[in-house]
Amino acid sequence: MEGSQSQSQNNTSAGKGKLYIIGIGPGSVPQMTIAARDVLMNSDYIVGNGTYLDQITELIDKQEIIRSAMGKEVDRAVKAVQLAKDKIVSMISGGDANIYGMAGLVLEVAEHEGLDVDIEVLPGVTAITAAASVLGAPIVNDFAVISLSDLLTPWEVIEKRLHAAASADFVISLYNPKSRQRKSNFSQAIDIIKKYKNGSVPVGLVKNALRTADQDYVVTTLDEVMNYNDWVDMSTTILIANNESRIWKSNNRERIITPRGYQRKYDY
Amino acid sequence: MEGSQSQSQNNTSAGKGKLYIIGIGPGSVPQMTIAARDVLMNSDYIVGNGTYLDQITELIDKQEIIRSAMGKEVDRAVKAVQLAKDKIVSMISGGDANIYGMAGLVLEVAEHEGLDVDIEVLPGVTAITAAASVLGAPIVNDFAVISLSDLLTPWEVIEKRLHAAASADFVISLYNPKSRQRKSNFSQAIDIIKKYKNGSVPVGLVKNALRTADQDYVVTTLDEVMNYNDWVDMSTTILIANNESRIWKSNNRERIITPRGYQRKYDY
Repeated sequence: MEGSQSQSQNNTSAGKGKLYIIGIGPGSVPQMTIAARDVLMNSDYIVGNGTYLDQITELIDKQEIIRSAMGKEVDRAVKAVQLAKDKIVSMISGGDANIYGMAGLVLEVAEHEGLDVDIEVLPGVTAITAAASVLGAPIVNDFAVISLSDLLTPWEVIEKRLHAAASADFVISLYNPKSRQRKSNFSQAIDIIKKYKNGSVPVGLVKNALRTADQDYVVTTLDEVMNYNDWVDMSTTILIANNESRIWKSNNRERIITPRGYQRKYDY
Repeated sequence: MEGSQSQSQNNTSAGKGKLYIIGIGPGSVPQMTIAARDVLMNSDYIVGNGTYLDQITELIDKQEIIRSAMGKEVDRAVKAVQLAKDKIVSMISGGDANIYGMAGLVLEVAEHEGLDVDIEVLPGVTAITAAASVLGAPIVNDFAVISLSDLLTPWEVIEKRLHAAASADFVISLYNPKSRQRKSNFSQAIDIIKKYKNGSVPVGLVKNALRTADQDYVVTTLDEVMNYNDWVDMSTTILIANNESRIWKSNNRERIITPRGYQRKYDY
């Protein structure tokens, strides 16, 4: 149709090389997509930081590895784009490649470098839905995702988004709740959300969702969540449910259920 | 720690059976997680509607299939929970199991039936990030997801969420933009969003993201998107970027780039 483009038209531009930007999922190979695994195993180069490379060691055989420290994202992206002129290069991102992932930066660098490189983004399971799976069914309705990191977004913008999301009773997922420099962002965010949502609203805190050995989580409420303040760290995913949500206790396990609708369509 | 529960403590409750609620991803087996594929191949029963079962036919061998029509979700969930008392049952959901998926309903049914069934949710790649991958990097910053279906949520609540998300300049993903009964919801939503976001803000429309044969998409702007109104259908995923986003044209392909931050941290 007019204005639309099929994917097959777009894979003809490159030379021999190709750059994949790959979301590797929550951090264990079984939770990666089959496509992501296959591309990684057939890459000439895999580029990523140590944390994510450590999550895919079982897939590494003959590929050359370019390991980069946090904070060197631009250098890494430039290197990946240049190599992809004539090599198969996979740049890895935790979770999904879009959601606070590498896709944006890599496309910005490719645009800036003006290189004729074929780029394909492969999605992955994001930390949000990995955490939601551990908690049961907390986000079956409309939701908003907000990073509390004010390194790249001014705190006033973050506050505005917290007010907006809480006032319209979105399920809210908070990323990057804490860092060494910003210990109070999490408590400030909870204070804002409590202005709008009931204190009984379920809250789930999840660390290392679906990473086999390290997963841990808490189910609590908005009124009680600050009791776990010391437990929350930079890598914790926070899910604050909506005013219709409830906690279901079964088999010594607590889970969060958010109903799909306000009026129940179903009788049973 | 106090209040937390490890996953390993929670797998001891069931009899022989188990119920998996599985997000099968955007609709082709390569975009499914390895864990989801493995569980499906080793299930006694697979329960789902025809659309999703058709997407996994290559994985079906000896499993018994319970095919259910749309609108029979409750019956299907009750059946799945009952079978899982002593069988391995996989209930499939398109995209992710949480995001407008089956996890909520199945947990509600399990709660209501009061059965001692072991339930595990396996996440999948949601349509949002599948669509984002096709479009490039549209959601690298905070975002909100809103279903325009007013079958289960009153239209006033949906409108309130549209105002909230647009006024705080979230990237916005719209689900269920149209149905036979509700042709005007999409245009009403765009009208609301245009009150807050610039007309030049990039908009991506994606059909059948990452389904090999059927994928199609459009990159346009908020000012122009209603030119594609007739093209948008119930299965189209809509991504409306933020005021910092731009369209990048390269190799005869248009993509959307949303920068991670307002202030550029990087020089190049």
